[in-house]
Amino acid sequence: MNAEIIAVGSELLLGQITNSNARFISSQLAEIGINVYYHTVVGDNPNRLLDAITIAENRSDLIIFSGGLGPTKDDLTKETIAKHLHIELEEDKDAMKSIVEFFQNQNKPMTENNRKQALVLRGSHVLANKNGMAPGMMYTASNHTYILLPGPPKEIEPMFQFEAKPLLTSLVSKGQIVSHVLRFYGIGEAELEDKLQHLLENQTNPTLAPLASDGEVTIRITANADTTEEAWKKIRVAKEEILHIAGDYFYGVDDDSISSVLTKMLMKNELTIAAAESLTAGLFQAELANNPGVGEALLGGMVTYNEQVKINQLGMEKEVIEQHGVVSSECASEMARLVKEKFGSTIGVGLTGAAGPQAHGNKPAGTVWIGIAIGDEPPHTYRLQLSGSRNTNRLRATKSAFYRLIQLLIEKGYERA
Amino acid sequence: MNAEIIAVGSELLLGQITNSNARFISSQLAEIGINVYYHTVVGDNPNRLLDAITIAENRSDLIIFSGGLGPTKDDLTKETIAKHLHIELEEDKDAMKSIVEFFQNQNKPMTENNRKQALVLRGSHVLANKNGMAPGMMYTASNHTYILLPGPPKEIEPMFQFEAKPLLTSLVSKGQIVSHVLRFYGIGEAELEDKLQHLLENQTNPTLAPLASDGEVTIRITANADTTEEAWKKIRVAKEEILHIAGDYFYGVDDDSISSVLTKMLMKNELTIAAAESLTAGLFQAELANNPGVGEALLGGMVTYNEQVKINQLGMEKEVIEQHGVVSSECASEMARLVKEKFGSTIGVGLTGAAGPQAHGNKPAGTVWIGIAIGDEPPHTYRLQLSGSRNTNRLRATKSAFYRLIQLLIEKGYERA
Repeated sequence: MNAEIIAVGSELLLGQITNSNARFISSQLAEIGINVYYHTVVGDNPNRLLDAITIAENRSDLIIFSGGLGPTKDDLTKETIAKHLHIELEEDKDAMKSIVEFFQNQNKPMTENNRKQALVLRGSHVLANKNGMAPGMMYTASNHTYILLPGPPKEIEPMFQFEAKPLLTSLVSKGQIVSHVLRFYGIGEAELEDKLQHLLENQTNPTLAPLASDGEVTIRITANADTTEEAWKKIRVAKEEILHIAGDYFYGVDDDSISSVLTKMLMKNELTIAAAESLTAGLFQAELANNPGVGEALLGGMVTYNEQVKINQLGMEKEVIEQHGVVSSECASEMARLVKEKFGSTIGVGLTGAAGPQAHGNKPAGTVWIGIAIGDEPPHTYRLQLSGSRNTNRLRATKSAFYRLIQLLIEKGYERA
Repeated sequence: MNAEIIAVGSELLLGQITNSNARFISSQLAEIGINVYYHTVVGDNPNRLLDAITIAENRSDLIIFSGGLGPTKDDLTKETIAKHLHIELEEDKDAMKSIVEFFQNQNKPMTENNRKQALVLRGSHVLANKNGMAPGMMYTASNHTYILLPGPPKEIEPMFQFEAKPLLTSLVSKGQIVSHVLRFYGIGEAELEDKLQHLLENQTNPTLAPLASDGEVTIRITANADTTEEAWKKIRVAKEEILHIAGDYFYGVDDDSISSVLTKMLMKNELTIAAAESLTAGLFQAELANNPGVGEALLGGMVTYNEQVKINQLGMEKEVIEQHGVVSSECASEMARLVKEKFGSTIGVGLTGAAGPQAHGNKPAGTVWIGIAIGDEPPHTYRLQLSGSRNTNRLRATKSAFYRLIQLLIEKGYERA
């Protein structure tokens, strides 16, 4: 089965947004062994959309549409397909019910154009939208399968994963395909590929696909076998070989993030944490708080953006700043120690540095100091020299602090989650 | 002139990377008034690439390729085009020279396959690559213009902007095209379109293109005229009409973000700010700190994730929490007032709520209270009832706080930035 993904929306052709939906759906299809041969993007224009559909029907079995299911007049994907396939649109009761409820919850009047969102292709399998109003559809006719999905990523991603993908998997079920992602931090993609070269070259089942993004590197292991158990067996063998070589940089699997791994570890070991943040200005704590249940571990902390705040609120001695400056090992160390004491947590983290674009005195942009205090020991400090933009540097500093803390906890014998 | 962008690379079809090049080139073409009607993505396969070229020639005047110019066997864009157009490839001396220099600078031996990168279509205009090895090309034949560009964003972006775009601009110079984006918050896309329906329907020059993302709505106004001044005149008229109807929700233009507008406004009016955050856990301060120079206004603040921290660190009376709970107007109001006092800022902001997925006692997930204290007046509070995921809710709460504060400052007569 060969697939084509058609994204509909003039905003894509104007360069206002990136076609991230095609990437997401492609990676999902790769997991279940469906080849994607083409992506197409076409604007909110019924004639050009019709042309794109005709071309796709000539070269692809499965045609997946994203976008154009919304309430406005520009949204014309299902109307165009209905006309092309000579089928009617009809109101889906469940979809209509959830649209009405959506407006009731928001305490807003429902405008008439929203009714249009509940229309579906007659005879299609309706895909529920748990994160928005427009339902999706799957329709099969004369050797082609058409899947219609909404445009917003937060709607299309869960809908594809939980509604469409299981249907497609059962369509193509020729053996079982299992994927497992290993996540690494603190090592570049080229360096990791270099270390694993002999594995990357010789593997066909499972396949190993490395990918770098946001300062992290992942390796996706995909195995194919008659049963899920056998596929997992293949994955475990490959995983063991990889971790034997690059285990030092390994932090988690699949949908883990560095902050979720740290959160689980804090909770498992009943540790509490507080942070004092300068350049990251709350990002460390905000990222930790992405993880539900983190309230057991994260007590809170301070944003000490201003020098006086470090002295008056956190209680730092003026001399530390005068002697070493705020971008220094000593300052990071004191921030970690003081915030731990003040908040009564088991762990204190301090983050200070020059995010950029300006240098901070004689400290160039991208200089970061991380302090970590655990229990009564003298705090540990780490220096980073980053070369990204202001906000990349702030995010890297945050992730590095998570990573350093995880490594430190492992060294001290705390259990991994 | 109508354009199509063909990105070549199997990694795009596997979902390993996003087609950000198409977005970049599209936004650049929009600026010079070239309509993009299609994006296509095709893998490293010469037959399918050839099919894609033939389809593009039937519907587009300008065909821009990204990717497939590198040294490996998979890189076949220029070979396929040369064969299709019956033209030879020849070595470009300048390109060869810079490839040799590249390896010398890196102190590495040049492998033979790198010679392939210096080959260009005979008769093409060669586009220099200042950030990599493979040169780009522009070639015109029988009513079509073909532009070949490398795949890596750091190579294609400067090459397009500084080499290809000036050539295209001189090709299309028929009047001036100017775009201007208006940004709105606190109103849905459907509701805004409803309000502006008569304008959206009747406008052809300028055109109005609404777009929703991340809880915001933008309207791009694009005008075409003989001179830039006349184009701007058309834009100003449309802008005035739009703001007359929907001005209450307007917060900024072009590349503004809500936090950048607020930051500029704080700096212009010499106001200082501190925040106490529960559900957002530092996100409000971290988002403000995205903006360079914010240190003049943002003193810092506290993350009071834990109830005891609100009492012990921020100094809240235990009775406030016992009587009203932490998800309450009273608690948000006290957080705003106390953090303002503690940090000695002119403005204090308090954020508390149930981010989800769990409710907080009898307060359903998505209930948020924002408190804003300015000067000595009693704090203002605002309630939100959000329906997104945990992290969408936290981001919406943060943006709403920015928006409410901007509105409040305008009401109080502070100057917009």
